[in-house]
Formats: sequence, structure tokens, C-alpha cells
Amino acid sequence: MRAHTDYLTMNTKQRREIVRITGDVARAVGASGVQEGLCLVSAMHITAGVYVNDDERGFRSDLMAMLEEIAPLGADYEHHKTGEDNGDAHLKNILVGHQVVLPITKGELDLGPWQQVFYAEFDGQRRKRVIVKIIGE
Amino acid sequence: MRAHTDYLTMNTKQRREIVRITGDVARAVGASGVQEGLCLVSAMHITAGVYVNDDERGFRSDLMAMLEEIAPLGADYEHHKTGEDNGDAHLKNILVGHQVVLPITKGELDLGPWQQVFYAEFDGQRRKRVIVKIIGE
Amino acid sequence: MRAHTDYLTMNTKQRREIVRITGDVARAVGASGVQEGLCLVSAMHITAGVYVNDDERGFRSDLMAMLEEIAPLGADYEHHKTGEDNGDAHLKNILVGHQVVLPITKGELDLGPWQQVFYAEFDGQRRKRVIVKIIGE
Repeated sequence: MRAHTDYLTMNTKQRREIVRITGDVARAVGASGVQEGLCLVSAMHITAGVYVNDDERGFRSDLMAMLEEIAPLGADYEHHKTGEDNGDAHLKNILVGHQVVLPITKGELDLGPWQQVFYAEFDGQRRKRVIVKIIGE
Repeated sequence: MRAHTDYLTMNTKQRREIVRITGDVARAVGASGVQEGLCLVSAMHITAGVYVNDDERGFRSDLMAMLEEIAPLGADYEHHKTGEDNGDAHLKNILVGHQVVLPITKGELDLGPWQQVFYAEFDGQRRKRVIVKIIGE
Repeated sequence: MRAHTDYLTMNTKQRREIVRITGDVARAVGASGVQEGLCLVSAMHITAGVYVNDDERGFRSDLMAMLEEIAPLGADYEHHKTGEDNGDAHLKNILVGHQVVLPITKGELDLGPWQQVFYAEFDGQRRKRVIVKIIGE
């Protein structure tokens, strides 16, 4: 069995931003030498998500709008009694999910034709990390 | 280490439809020969989900109703500026999730008594695929 | 390759309750002897979730409030025609997700500084199980 670990560093310019990371993940898969296995891509923070979907600007906007509708920025969250102001970001993390597991077949990510991997930042403008953990053979 | 890959083909009669796939996944586990491991079941499309829950008709209806409430078909999505009409399906994919990871113990899916695996189609009536990727020993 | 399986038993005092299980999962990782690998933590029931987020009382309250807003207890669910009264719990399971996959690096859970693992019970006051399945080397 082989195992390989990479940490991607994210530091978005906007508080909320969606960043495509398929290429970074594919490079980690290549570096791992794994031909058949699984690749976990997981945000190491609690106010960011990782998801797979379409690389389309309109969809990114629709996704952010839906999340804002359910868990709006600046609402009166209990979490804010700690002095934090990012209660919405924690909830958006739950709704989107903070991780995906990607199949590796014949040494490459085995994704569908439109599937791309994204990092969704909900409280950015600071350094954060995403772990890419690959196991297989 | 052993690895095994299967691709299930889905082609639903309805635009939106929920299909139980536990049996197909269990067959892949049997074919893999893996006794202890993990089984990834992941939609290869961006308008379909995979989830684990109860095999109960009423719940299927409740799930679709909840998703329709949050991300209704035919709303004015930014994604539709591309000419597509399935913005709701992309959002439903995010809410349900497009994959699950199932434990394999003693050669079988190690699920709870009521857990069944489902494919949730949100924009069907065409051929789609689900990957089943198994690793273990 | 090594594989290790643990089953955590949950029995919450409240119908809805959030329980931190990071320590239990970390103990399973220690017992597994796995240095590099993946750790699946998955509810074996269809009315409970597993998630990673902040260990903060206010956030737990915000999360339950958001889920209650989307899928309220006691609404008129189709699922209730079976005689059950927990339709909301099934939907909350879908929204939160019933599982996470945690990376193991150098023999330990490789989590971010604020990441903790939680069991979210939506229909408790009875015995339930969570499987912890670890594979790696």
C-alpha cells in the first residue's frame, strides 16, 4: 500500500470565494504514484467547504445565493456571543460539506466529464489549509 | 491491497427519481473479494446525488419536497444564462451530496439495519454513471 | 494493509443532542496501529448525523435551529403515514450527512486546529451505533 499527503494553502482575496482546485489535487495524485485508490480532499477549517460540481460562473453564484438564503451573513447567531461574527460560515460549511473522496483509476482522478473539485471559502482573507490524503497501490 | 472498480449505468424514466442501488453495490463488493475495506459510491454527474437512508416511499417524497422547497425547478438561476434549465438539479446535488463511503467488514457491506443506498436523479431521462470504487484486503 | 473496526454505542438522554466523539475516534485510531490511512466515521442509523466542526455551544444551537427551520419536528410528512413521527430526523440526517472520512498521518487524526468530530442525534433516547472503520498501513 502507498500513502501520500499534501496540504494545499488557500488565502482568498474575498471573504467568500470559490476556487477550483482540481489541478492541485490531480498533481498530488500524480506525485503519489498511486494507480488504484482513494483520494480524500478535506478542508482543515470549519468555515470552508469542499465540493464537486460544474465549473460555471452562474452556478457558483446560485450556490452562494442559496447558502446565503438559508444561513445569512450577519444574522443573530448564538455563536456570535463568543465575539465571533462568522456563524453563517460554520452553517454553510455543514450544508456544502467540508470534504469529498475521489476515486483514482489507472493513476488518474476518475471523475465524470463535468466534475471539477472546488474549495468554497466562507470566511477567508487569511491563510487556510486543505489536506489531500491518498491511499492505494 | 486489493482494488476493484465498477460503473453502474442509470437511465431514469422520470426527470427526478430515486433508485435503490444497495444490491448493485453489494454485488460489486462480492466481486471485489475484499474482506475488510472501504467502498466509495459516487455519482459521476453534477445533477445527481447518492445517499444512505430509509427505503420508504413517504420519505422519498419528503426528501424531494424539501429539496424542491430550497431549490425549486424553474427558478431564475444564474446558471440558466448558459442556456441550461437544470440549475435546481446542481443545487440539489450539493444538498444531498453526490457520494457515500461504505464500510466493508467480513466481505460484506457493514450497514445498519435500516440503511439502504440510493441514487437520486435530479435531471434524468438520459444515461448517467455511478462509480463504485472498493479498496481493502 | 491494516484494517480496524470499532463500533461506538450512543444513547442520548434528549431526543435531539450533539455529542463530541473525537476522543473515541482517536482511541480507535491508536488501537488500529495505522500510521498512514483513512478513518471512516459513519452513523449506522438513518436519523442521526456525523459532522466535523467547532466545539462551541452557540454553534450547536445555531445548527439545530437551522435544521429545525428547514425540516421542523412535527410537520405533516408523508413518512408519518407509516406510523412513525420522525420524518424531520430523516431529513436532518440528509442535510448534515451521516459520515465523515478523517485522514490519519503519523499515527494520529490529521485535523485542523478547531476541527472536532460530532455525533448529531435527531431521534434518540435509545441505543444506536456509529462505525469507525480504519484502513491504512
